[in-house]
Amino acid sequence: MRDFLPAEKARRERVLAVIRERYRAHGFDEIETPVVEDYARLHSGMGGDNEKLSFSILKRGLEANDFVSSNGDVAALADLGLRFDLTVPLARFYATNRGELPTVFRSIQMAPVWRAERPQKGRYRQFVQCDIDIMGDASARAEAELIVATLDTVDALGLEGSSIRINDRRALDAMLDVFGFAVDERPGVLITIDKLDKIGAEGVVAELRERGTTASAVDAFESFMRRPQTLEYRPYGDGQIRKALPQGISDDVIEHLVGIGEAVQAARGDEAPLIFDPFLVRGMGYYTGTIFELAHPSVNYSLGGGGRYDGMIGRFLGQDVPAVGFSIGFERIVDLLDEQTVDATPSVVLVHDKNVAVAQLIALKAELVREGMRVRVEQRTKNLNGLLSRAQADGYGAFATVTADTTRETLEIKQLG
Amino acid sequence: MRDFLPAEKARRERVLAVIRERYRAHGFDEIETPVVEDYARLHSGMGGDNEKLSFSILKRGLEANDFVSSNGDVAALADLGLRFDLTVPLARFYATNRGELPTVFRSIQMAPVWRAERPQKGRYRQFVQCDIDIMGDASARAEAELIVATLDTVDALGLEGSSIRINDRRALDAMLDVFGFAVDERPGVLITIDKLDKIGAEGVVAELRERGTTASAVDAFESFMRRPQTLEYRPYGDGQIRKALPQGISDDVIEHLVGIGEAVQAARGDEAPLIFDPFLVRGMGYYTGTIFELAHPSVNYSLGGGGRYDGMIGRFLGQDVPAVGFSIGFERIVDLLDEQTVDATPSVVLVHDKNVAVAQLIALKAELVREGMRVRVEQRTKNLNGLLSRAQADGYGAFATVTADTTRETLEIKQLG
Repeated sequence: MRDFLPAEKARRERVLAVIRERYRAHGFDEIETPVVEDYARLHSGMGGDNEKLSFSILKRGLEANDFVSSNGDVAALADLGLRFDLTVPLARFYATNRGELPTVFRSIQMAPVWRAERPQKGRYRQFVQCDIDIMGDASARAEAELIVATLDTVDALGLEGSSIRINDRRALDAMLDVFGFAVDERPGVLITIDKLDKIGAEGVVAELRERGTTASAVDAFESFMRRPQTLEYRPYGDGQIRKALPQGISDDVIEHLVGIGEAVQAARGDEAPLIFDPFLVRGMGYYTGTIFELAHPSVNYSLGGGGRYDGMIGRFLGQDVPAVGFSIGFERIVDLLDEQTVDATPSVVLVHDKNVAVAQLIALKAELVREGMRVRVEQRTKNLNGLLSRAQADGYGAFATVTADTTRETLEIKQLG
Repeated sequence: MRDFLPAEKARRERVLAVIRERYRAHGFDEIETPVVEDYARLHSGMGGDNEKLSFSILKRGLEANDFVSSNGDVAALADLGLRFDLTVPLARFYATNRGELPTVFRSIQMAPVWRAERPQKGRYRQFVQCDIDIMGDASARAEAELIVATLDTVDALGLEGSSIRINDRRALDAMLDVFGFAVDERPGVLITIDKLDKIGAEGVVAELRERGTTASAVDAFESFMRRPQTLEYRPYGDGQIRKALPQGISDDVIEHLVGIGEAVQAARGDEAPLIFDPFLVRGMGYYTGTIFELAHPSVNYSLGGGGRYDGMIGRFLGQDVPAVGFSIGFERIVDLLDEQTVDATPSVVLVHDKNVAVAQLIALKAELVREGMRVRVEQRTKNLNGLLSRAQADGYGAFATVTADTTRETLEIKQLG
């Protein structure tokens, strides 16, 4: 877990502010849930492998005997845990507060989550997720709203030229069915297919053969992969998508995908960078329909993703509610935007001699603040250049020297750098 | 712990944005620390009673035998805990990152803390604290900067007319010394004096007598309380402060208080609502010098407070660093500002018929977003009034009806309410 120093914290807050503002413009409303959820809820099977990475919080007021009699069962000693994602808390939130929410509820969540991962480069045990979700809309309108809002937001962050790969879990399942993979080998097949980007079609076929997967199904997959592939979504007619899929995929699924493509194109015009990828998998088990991933040409990893999880809210509510979400990779995006962003507020460092009266100094500072400036006060040190270059690194654009007789009228503000 | 629904969350974010912007203008820089700190650090005696209220996080990968052999010692099973304040993490942060911080470091922290309190009205187990602190400045300049920045910030929040009561722990100690209280009875005496507001001087005297406190000291206290009291700080000369204290308080302490008063008056002019209160106590044991509390005429409880804690950072750094902080009561302030604040962004709800094509609708929405509006899409329901009044409660100011042939040119936007 990390400390954030001023420059990094300011950059993070600027990114959050842009995301918040853009998503709000698209009709999403920010909510917040406690960072702590019930232990049982965090271990109810909806979080996949992340459940194993959750931090557990001890009950208060336990006696020595409780520890002994627990026999090592954490569930007997812990009643709470830190959330490992924002989706399980959202499902709980929606079930709790549904009566006070609009029929179609569009949420924004921007908040930290915790996973007890082994420390490694680029992985943190506390990190921020930025999710938008739409609950209560089963139509392609929901996906289109999520995708248009997200593309607009990453544009506003300076990541123009992003694209979105899209698929549907139902198409993926139907495709495995058409090829003839047995039901019980499909989870393993999906894990292998998910490596297509890295090991290519040949690698996937080799891995499937090696594992003894149904030979005729692997053959069917292999010969399908040899067809000329057209992964461009455009012109958003269903022809392109049908061409990219084997025969036998339901019309509903294809029409849903086409509907999303047409809507995104209508909203973004030529800037509708959707790519249909019939082999996009995405890991989470709770997806039930469309799945998508955000990419940017400057990096070879995904900057976010999401999908439909129509079954999950029903687990809490006892009544199914269609839901679809998009999570952008806040930490990755902040790292991409790593350059020093200029702070637009005029700012000045007041470098004062030791003998300047406190009242004179504080009054001068207050006057400059009232004029709209950001003001830092620094007592002069021998290393004035060091002091000024640190202030510049902290975003200050100017400085002025204050002696015992300096007033606002005689203050000379000089640009730094 | 609470869920925050859209209207409440928006209000909280607006308050945070104002505080962040004002404190930044006054030269403070925002930082962030992980919500989780080492268990040992959270139980090192610096958090007072709050340490007992901290949530502890279990080590990962414990075996059944670890629980049995722990013999109920939480320290053997927990390695982390949720922070109960922002001061202990700040001291740790400063010790860790000092080399990358300016000599005088002015921090902003706005973040949640957790305390395992019994649920009661107005008390939450997760709540946000807003702290500013200055490390590395022992002079009255530091207190003056904190106080001027805080008064400016509460003004900007619409809480004009706030005042600050101020005292110095050293004056308080010296006063107990002058009266003749024994050293070992002073902590109890302070707890009783802290009730002055509620039970009055007579109540305090009665309670001290009842407890068998040194009789001559209680007599001295009682006769001091009968003097005409001048708690006004103005005209910021040392006369007023000396008059409010018994003889024998050190000049240093009085000059420090006078310096603060003069500087705040110089910065704020007539709007310098400082009150010297020689019986202000404040609970935390780590205060070593000035202490202060923020009040507003609309409520009879404090809206924040702080003080000097020159000894604490040395506990981590092995080298004393002067430090002083001001914490404003974010939750109380949000509750005070409870009225619906108008969102300045123009906004519209698009109410569409079921047969409107997704692409038409999403394109129209995108066009309005590009024009600078916040846009929510709603499918028409039988209860149109209910739908519109909910949107209005969520801050939407206008609506428009969309049918299959509506374009931007034919869209009629009507004000709500």
